[in-house]
Amino acid sequence: MTETPMTEKALEDDAPVWSLVTFNEDGLVPAIAQRLDTGEVLMMAWMNREALAETLATGKACYWSRGRGRLWRKGESSGQSQTVKSLRVDCDGDTILMLVEQKGVACHTGRSNCFFNEVGASGDIKVIAEPLVDPEDLYGTRSKH
Amino acid sequence: MTETPMTEKALEDDAPVWSLVTFNEDGLVPAIAQRLDTGEVLMMAWMNREALAETLATGKACYWSRGRGRLWRKGESSGQSQTVKSLRVDCDGDTILMLVEQKGVACHTGRSNCFFNEVGASGDIKVIAEPLVDPEDLYGTRSKH
Repeated sequence: MTETPMTEKALEDDAPVWSLVTFNEDGLVPAIAQRLDTGEVLMMAWMNREALAETLATGKACYWSRGRGRLWRKGESSGQSQTVKSLRVDCDGDTILMLVEQKGVACHTGRSNCFFNEVGASGDIKVIAEPLVDPEDLYGTRSKH
Repeated sequence: MTETPMTEKALEDDAPVWSLVTFNEDGLVPAIAQRLDTGEVLMMAWMNREALAETLATGKACYWSRGRGRLWRKGESSGQSQTVKSLRVDCDGDTILMLVEQKGVACHTGRSNCFFNEVGASGDIKVIAEPLVDPEDLYGTRSKH
């Protein structure tokens, strides 16, 4: 496992990452967060250029909340932050994968990860994970994520 | 690890999965493929309703190729198919995670997975994986994926 030390550093406009990453028509790119230690895929969210620059500069996952229309510093309200140990871009530059150290749970439902709805061959749904913590304890109020 | 047996079966229009999954304005939803055995995140591609229905019915990953504007049965040209052992939908219904058995390599570049560009804190890029097979041997011609 390669780990990239993340330091407080501004990204130059001509940094190679900007010519590699393709943002969609909304200026966003999907970012997958995977646990470095267990390999568990935790969540997928979106980043704009500013969120990606902040993530690289701080080493803490920062997304763009499409619902709230602003930067979403993962854990800002729940405390469940993600420390980014490696950030990777795929072959065609339109998806990001981050290997992270997850503090607490990743899902706003209080579950370890967001992928708890298993779909059967007939299209039926089975919930395969239960909350480990009460979202009320994470947010105080019902999450708007 | 829960495994869902996939059988040849048509999905009903009122199958629960259709009310759970949210397709974007282009009728697509992102689908992440992860190796069941190693946890390696292989790739992220897109599915429309037809691709998801076929994937569930056949147990073989079928995506929608945005570049070619048609269904993309993973491995149809390269032979590098994906057998889906579990298909999951996230908490807000806008991302799919598949646990797959990958035949050969997942990336059209001949690499094991698509996430081989590691981004440093300054935005520099380091290629952290090399092709395991020659794409020419997978496709005969240069890949258009």
